[in-house]
Amino acid sequence: MTGEFDFIDNLLNKTTKNKPRFSAVKIGIGDDCAVISQNSKTDLVITADMLVEDIDFRLDWRRAEFVGHKALAVSLSDVAATGAKPLWAMISIGIPEKIWKTDFVEKFYAGWFDLAKKFNVELVGGDVSRTPDKIVIDSIVAGEAKKNCAILRNGAQAGDLIFVTGKLGGAAAGLRLLESGFRFDSEKGSRKNFIRKQLAPNPQIEIGLKLSEKKLATAMLDLSDGISSDLSHLCRASKVGARLIAEKIPLEKNLLQVLKQNEDVISFALNGGEDFELLFTARPKDKNKLEKLFGEKTTFIGQITDDVGKIELARESKIILLEPQGFRHF
Amino acid sequence: MTGEFDFIDNLLNKTTKNKPRFSAVKIGIGDDCAVISQNSKTDLVITADMLVEDIDFRLDWRRAEFVGHKALAVSLSDVAATGAKPLWAMISIGIPEKIWKTDFVEKFYAGWFDLAKKFNVELVGGDVSRTPDKIVIDSIVAGEAKKNCAILRNGAQAGDLIFVTGKLGGAAAGLRLLESGFRFDSEKGSRKNFIRKQLAPNPQIEIGLKLSEKKLATAMLDLSDGISSDLSHLCRASKVGARLIAEKIPLEKNLLQVLKQNEDVISFALNGGEDFELLFTARPKDKNKLEKLFGEKTTFIGQITDDVGKIELARESKIILLEPQGFRHF
Repeated sequence: MTGEFDFIDNLLNKTTKNKPRFSAVKIGIGDDCAVISQNSKTDLVITADMLVEDIDFRLDWRRAEFVGHKALAVSLSDVAATGAKPLWAMISIGIPEKIWKTDFVEKFYAGWFDLAKKFNVELVGGDVSRTPDKIVIDSIVAGEAKKNCAILRNGAQAGDLIFVTGKLGGAAAGLRLLESGFRFDSEKGSRKNFIRKQLAPNPQIEIGLKLSEKKLATAMLDLSDGISSDLSHLCRASKVGARLIAEKIPLEKNLLQVLKQNEDVISFALNGGEDFELLFTARPKDKNKLEKLFGEKTTFIGQITDDVGKIELARESKIILLEPQGFRHF
Repeated sequence: MTGEFDFIDNLLNKTTKNKPRFSAVKIGIGDDCAVISQNSKTDLVITADMLVEDIDFRLDWRRAEFVGHKALAVSLSDVAATGAKPLWAMISIGIPEKIWKTDFVEKFYAGWFDLAKKFNVELVGGDVSRTPDKIVIDSIVAGEAKKNCAILRNGAQAGDLIFVTGKLGGAAAGLRLLESGFRFDSEKGSRKNFIRKQLAPNPQIEIGLKLSEKKLATAMLDLSDGISSDLSHLCRASKVGARLIAEKIPLEKNLLQVLKQNEDVISFALNGGEDFELLFTARPKDKNKLEKLFGEKTTFIGQITDDVGKIELARESKIILLEPQGFRHF
């Protein structure tokens, strides 16, 4: 087996080959969510995200409530990235016996339900299993989009403008702080803020919904691996290229606090993952509308090009080719 | 945290407390599948099952294709137990790096797709992650039931007859053989058959569908933990009791081959899990209809009583109280 993205391509070929003659499935593998026809007015969108202890999260870095929050948040973020309204969820959880005997599970669900309540998400099922050693969580969230209105990765066209929600680099800064021994409970100010962004990200449901409702986004995904990597997924799906403008990238405040000597803050923000903000493209004519609607909640950061597969960064009158450097499991 | 069934009750209370005011969810936690209203003619049913290496399966016991087959089969069996038609599925899989480098993943999906094709199930998504040490699979399958026709666990009434599909004890016999060092590839005859039943069970989709279509089952679930345990779930949900008739229990052929000295074959079949047959109840007036429709594919094995929570076994003119002895994770 090669890398995980080749693996996904390979699966996509297999499902296409084996597709049943009559199928309600409109979008399967390869987007943030699968999109399935459910009635004449709406489509169902659904996503699954697996979180593994010591790979995707560390228990000594966080309260159990944060694990529950994040497990739901990452899947809600996928639903947000299609512009759908989240409705219900399932959680499968594998737990070692020694953790089962603690209050982890109780606190995990407390964190999960706190976030679920905020978005009216209902827990409908899942599974509980024992694992030999590490906690494993599979988070499944389903939502509802207006018929044929789910926003996909493949709709960007050359000339479209690129936008991002929120500020970038905060979650990566939080990760670095945690790796250096800082902890949420003992920090305050920017450091606490960075760590919170890493441990308990906020899915951008409202903005996703509004973009879908007003038909303003031509393509969208959520930033899980880092822009350099995620934008290349969007460009690949849309068969386009992109040029980002370095000085437009919205940086989280006080990032310099966590940078190493001579480290570049723009690269840090572009390659740092887990911001769970939305990256979307829109037609140039809708720029004013977007600015009016969202104010500083979204930022124009570049433009789609017809240079297929090429992601460039315009910086101080130079054009640099951007290599995807985000997180990969394999 | 106490046992896993208390845990599920606890979750059910939490979801009830947090239920959104407007909800399409008809049945949530606690049945084989969640049931969700999707349009005026059909309901969506959906289930998730987590399988963990060395807890739920062992790699040295089986070909990777069997792992793929079983991951899908256990969830299809849950869909079968609601009488629904399976439609689409997701797989989340966590894999250690050393396994990723082998042909495991390729063969896993080959086994998965072989079974999926048989039931026209389409893979629509999932996730792939790295694990530190052991393989973890979360299998999600969704199906479609006619509006308000999904068969639940809670519909059994005193006087209803109890039926089971297929023969019991084969999968438990296979497990015992595997534990004793016998392997699928080197066996033949009954032993190979038992091991196949353990490694690659057949979900009873057709019978489930027919029971739903003809409205013949008042309650149903699939046999994953063993009848003694699964029947107690059904009785608990329906607030009834049950009396099984020992000599009616349909035993897999040649079970005696694997029994220990003085071991009781009926107890072995009642407590052995993973047969993935269907256990259902029906009105007495429908007994002939069922026999005509299914012949030897289903067997009458007892009757529902009003002795709430009590599972009895009538055997050689004695009545024995049956304690649930099936598999539990915690």
